Amino acid sequence: MDNVFNFSAGPAALPKAVMEQAQSELVNWNNLGTSVMEISHRSKEFIQVAEEAEQDLRDLLNIPNNYKVLFCQGGARAQFAAVPLNLLGQNNKATYIDAGFWAESAIDEAQKYCEVDSYVAKTEIDGKIAVTPASDWIVAEDSAYVHFCPNETIDGVEIYDLPQTDKPIVADMSSNILSQRIDVSKYGVIYAGAQKNIGPSGLCIAIVRDDLLDLASQVVPSFLNYKVLAEKDSMFNTPPTFAWYLSGLVFKWLKAQGGVEAMEQINREKAALLYNYIDSSDFYRNSVHSANRSRMNVPFQLAKPELDEAFLAQAKARGLVALKGHRVVGGMRASIYNAMPLEGVQALVDFMREFEAANA
Amino acid sequence: MDNVFNFSAGPAALPKAVMEQAQSELVNWNNLGTSVMEISHRSKEFIQVAEEAEQDLRDLLNIPNNYKVLFCQGGARAQFAAVPLNLLGQNNKATYIDAGFWAESAIDEAQKYCEVDSYVAKTEIDGKIAVTPASDWIVAEDSAYVHFCPNETIDGVEIYDLPQTDKPIVADMSSNILSQRIDVSKYGVIYAGAQKNIGPSGLCIAIVRDDLLDLASQVVPSFLNYKVLAEKDSMFNTPPTFAWYLSGLVFKWLKAQGGVEAMEQINREKAALLYNYIDSSDFYRNSVHSANRSRMNVPFQLAKPELDEAFLAQAKARGLVALKGHRVVGGMRASIYNAMPLEGVQALVDFMREFEAANA
Repeated sequence: MDNVFNFSAGPAALPKAVMEQAQSELVNWNNLGTSVMEISHRSKEFIQVAEEAEQDLRDLLNIPNNYKVLFCQGGARAQFAAVPLNLLGQNNKATYIDAGFWAESAIDEAQKYCEVDSYVAKTEIDGKIAVTPASDWIVAEDSAYVHFCPNETIDGVEIYDLPQTDKPIVADMSSNILSQRIDVSKYGVIYAGAQKNIGPSGLCIAIVRDDLLDLASQVVPSFLNYKVLAEKDSMFNTPPTFAWYLSGLVFKWLKAQGGVEAMEQINREKAALLYNYIDSSDFYRNSVHSANRSRMNVPFQLAKPELDEAFLAQAKARGLVALKGHRVVGGMRASIYNAMPLEGVQALVDFMREFEAANA
Repeated sequence: MDNVFNFSAGPAALPKAVMEQAQSELVNWNNLGTSVMEISHRSKEFIQVAEEAEQDLRDLLNIPNNYKVLFCQGGARAQFAAVPLNLLGQNNKATYIDAGFWAESAIDEAQKYCEVDSYVAKTEIDGKIAVTPASDWIVAEDSAYVHFCPNETIDGVEIYDLPQTDKPIVADMSSNILSQRIDVSKYGVIYAGAQKNIGPSGLCIAIVRDDLLDLASQVVPSFLNYKVLAEKDSMFNTPPTFAWYLSGLVFKWLKAQGGVEAMEQINREKAALLYNYIDSSDFYRNSVHSANRSRMNVPFQLAKPELDEAFLAQAKARGLVALKGHRVVGGMRASIYNAMPLEGVQALVDFMREFEAANA
């Protein structure tokens, strides 16, 4: 099938140009006669890939020099354990802001290692899902850190402000990293599974302020120990080299698009196009308050849920794939990460309009 | 460069036919219009890939039904922590057989979680590196399990017998899994990082006897918990889908070659060809006793180490790459895993003979 627009929530679509480059050099990379995934992670050729990827990410996010960039394995779920195991130090408490499924999953894991001071930030305004303003959030005085997840993929909720606290802020940015400008210096740790806005699954990036590297528990597995990873340039164990390489290609692609500032502009346009159409229609509905709508994941329901299957089938026939919503909320979900062009969202809206006209 | 034979110790060469198939379908897999790495791990298409890979591995190794096959992240180093965290139960001791670098690395990590009863099996016979017979090894009565690493990549040492014990045997088969027939029913846990005989780095396979699933510590990170992984079909967290897919292609390739029995035969031929030539020459030397020579990693030294650089450069010009030995032992190392054809070893021996003739 040609000309597919892939709205998968993750593992998600990667930029087409990146995939074509990866394909062209898959069996003979850099004229070595082998793939990049068949060489030592300690070879000079791979170390150049690794260092360039890190530098490009530093450039894209303006990461200050007092932050380490770690290329980890195990996805965000590994970080759910790694964060308390690395950051609690002598403390036994951490505050977790709860605004949805992923925040709650992080809480479940953290409870194995400490007392979790859980602050429920999810609320309802006018019957819509919403999040209380960050200025209202209360952080326990004796917490080692504050954890939050600024984009919840299932409900399609995004938080655009930051906890007001002098504690280190830890953010699970798996689903919105690189989609908008952020001020890294305001965070203690940012981590992100790669499979939405970075690269293929199997890689997780952690950006760690260097004063937080000396707090690790005795029982943290060494390969999850931020200090060990920092000292070994993320090569304490053999890293997922192909995922690292492909993420590096994505970073170069992002720079060529104009960087994070340009992506933020395009992401705003894509989200506005889709939400505006949904809001203008009585046939489709989004349940999130406008202040907390995600620019990455747009869930929507049909007024006639009995048409869900027909909608999905007709969309797929048009090359608009992976639109089925998460089983918890049902309906549809369009994930429109960086790799989704405006053209793809326009094609979706065009189809939605036609489907509405035929079925309203 | 064409016609390269890649002797990398890991990440290592993958079968050429597998890489060509992966390339041909990289941007349009299964006619979906996307790559296999851009679809949900929970899609029916990916679940079929995952299930077929598991079944093919079960077929290749004759894995009994009372063993779970887990597709993990973090490589063997993650298992160095996962093994004690999953298997100690109420015990506080485990026996580790020490025959080299990787066994010692596993010991270092295990010491964070329990008392390690370390049994030094490495020895010397006639000035050659050797390993004492497994029948001599002493396993502490109160050990929860016995851990050993049957192939040490740095020294090029392989152990062909098994601990004599009624404790669960845990084997790090990262560098020799699928290279020879094994009787899985004799083991408690077998684990193997993918990047030598299975697929790309970033994936680690664990084969776990199901009576060992209920012993996990409270502090094991959930994504390393064998029981959680078993219950969730290795999809508790998003798995490294591309590595899983590619490993599945390798398993199908292995079956097409005649399975593990055929590979063992070819691996014996490859190793004999290389060791016999080395032994027949005064110009090259291997330091391992014949009973413990690895069929996967063949280190050798030149009689004139001042020629090392010339050897590597001329070999590379002939398409024989990644022959530099590990920095700890120096000299050369030819890693000849399953993906290395006999033809590649023959090309290496031909070159070694010519180099000797020109420089002896």
